[in-house]
Amino acid sequence: MSIDIRKQLIKALSDADGEFLSGQTLAEKIGCSRTAIWKHIEELRKDGFILEAVRNKGYKIINTPEDLTESDILFGLETERFGRNIHFYESVESTQKVAHQLAHEGAPEGTIVVSEEQRTGRGRLGRSWSSLPKKGVWMSMIVRPVLPPQKAPQFTLITAVAAANAIGEVTGLHPEIKWPNDILINGKKVVGILTELQAEADKISSLVIGIGINANHDVEDLHESIQGKATSLYIEKRKKISRAQLIQTFLKDFEKYYGIYLDKGFAPIKLLWETYAISIGKVITARTVTGEIVGRALGITDEGVLKVEDEHGTIHEVYSADIELSD
Amino acid sequence: MSIDIRKQLIKALSDADGEFLSGQTLAEKIGCSRTAIWKHIEELRKDGFILEAVRNKGYKIINTPEDLTESDILFGLETERFGRNIHFYESVESTQKVAHQLAHEGAPEGTIVVSEEQRTGRGRLGRSWSSLPKKGVWMSMIVRPVLPPQKAPQFTLITAVAAANAIGEVTGLHPEIKWPNDILINGKKVVGILTELQAEADKISSLVIGIGINANHDVEDLHESIQGKATSLYIEKRKKISRAQLIQTFLKDFEKYYGIYLDKGFAPIKLLWETYAISIGKVITARTVTGEIVGRALGITDEGVLKVEDEHGTIHEVYSADIELSD
Repeated sequence: MSIDIRKQLIKALSDADGEFLSGQTLAEKIGCSRTAIWKHIEELRKDGFILEAVRNKGYKIINTPEDLTESDILFGLETERFGRNIHFYESVESTQKVAHQLAHEGAPEGTIVVSEEQRTGRGRLGRSWSSLPKKGVWMSMIVRPVLPPQKAPQFTLITAVAAANAIGEVTGLHPEIKWPNDILINGKKVVGILTELQAEADKISSLVIGIGINANHDVEDLHESIQGKATSLYIEKRKKISRAQLIQTFLKDFEKYYGIYLDKGFAPIKLLWETYAISIGKVITARTVTGEIVGRALGITDEGVLKVEDEHGTIHEVYSADIELSD
Repeated sequence: MSIDIRKQLIKALSDADGEFLSGQTLAEKIGCSRTAIWKHIEELRKDGFILEAVRNKGYKIINTPEDLTESDILFGLETERFGRNIHFYESVESTQKVAHQLAHEGAPEGTIVVSEEQRTGRGRLGRSWSSLPKKGVWMSMIVRPVLPPQKAPQFTLITAVAAANAIGEVTGLHPEIKWPNDILINGKKVVGILTELQAEADKISSLVIGIGINANHDVEDLHESIQGKATSLYIEKRKKISRAQLIQTFLKDFEKYYGIYLDKGFAPIKLLWETYAISIGKVITARTVTGEIVGRALGITDEGVLKVEDEHGTIHEVYSADIELSD
């Protein structure tokens, strides 16, 4: 299997710790011909790996690529459906826009749109989302559940749980979820989620779920206006993140949780969500389109709606809001 | 006012009952110059009116156009916003498709897409909708209420009430509404409505409401497979319908009911809807995606949901179904 050779080759070179490995050594180690090794080295170079080759010494890896490629996402992807149909771009206006178009044209469930850069990335309520080239995961995903439109907000929570779990798995960091669609590390935003839908009046045609993960941003890559409020996995971990691995892990987790949801409903997702929830039990200010509610966040309902108890003991059900933690 | 001259001119010529009217007579009758009459006659010809002109006798109208033009819709339109932005086509795949694209690009509320023909017109659940050239009203409309997605089905009912009312106004016929989206005359379908939406998880971005009205079809224009189930306004009335007037009246009614809905909620719409409802009190079979319910239709809730009481006395709330009347 040529994918296996590639993976073993990358591992062997990465493990060599700066030493040269000869073509013969690599061929024996992996169990293939020297010609195969040579071919794969060339392939890796094309994909942006920087490899030094010295006669009579062999190969040394200088740098793994900062770039993300479609192959990087596919190699090692453990899902059945999610991410199996990839639309990959170097730069787009917004992956949501592309994914909406694909959804209209009938793209299958699990289709993802990934771009190295978004020129006009969007967040909730038409807000802009900064998407610097090669720094993050800028991705949209098409999901086609047979459900009425009012179930759509639950997918923001399923996506948040999958993203939080994937970040934990890949980095060892401890992400927290601020209802409904922010993921924070050490109190700063690292992920944004945007769930949009196309539907008939009573039936979802497709969900287009956008996810932005600040991965390899350094502090100076974050716009002044969001420093102090935003962070990246690199800033928190001080180690570069493999965005391909992050996407693969997220897709695997999302596919799993989505399966659970279709099978057993929202209740098990709610339990998972609560393990990450930062806002529950705290005094919050919820800004909705109709006004502000200040109170203690009691939790979410079995439908994913936030319950907030105000100072008079009145319990409000909040379907959508920006949340600010007060304590 | 030149629009007034045009309208008066059409009326005078139509009322002349096959007699010639001289330019002088027309100018005096309408109160404008003979030059103005001449100019307007030329305009009418461009718009498809067939007019005979004989020296020393004057003008006679041979035929009013079967065609619909953008000007026909605008002249005499009494709305504030609906239909003020018209995208008019001779032929499109589907007006819904065009309207979705326009909605994505930010087209304002009230934008309508009208086409003389749809090559692949669509109904609910991806069903096809026959849209013969120049025979019907094939139209989609962009509405942008600030509401959560679960309110979308109510717009099917608002649209149905507006369409039923407009048909009554223009033709004197008595349309009835079969929940949720069919309008019947003498038990046969004459209008279909398709409500689709683009939304964030908890907020509608735009509703794209499609409406198809069989207007001037003769019996042989209806496909064999739907003869007996479908009809047209012409078949029922034995008189050609002005599609422009029908569109104008529908837009005026829709704008009015939409205003009432935004102001006072669904309750007043429910009352209007009930005056047209054919299925209420009858035994029906409701086919939903999950199965079949047979029972007596009790009415709709304040949210627009159909209540059906089965033989065991259990009351089902039906959000979406195909309805068949059993008695």
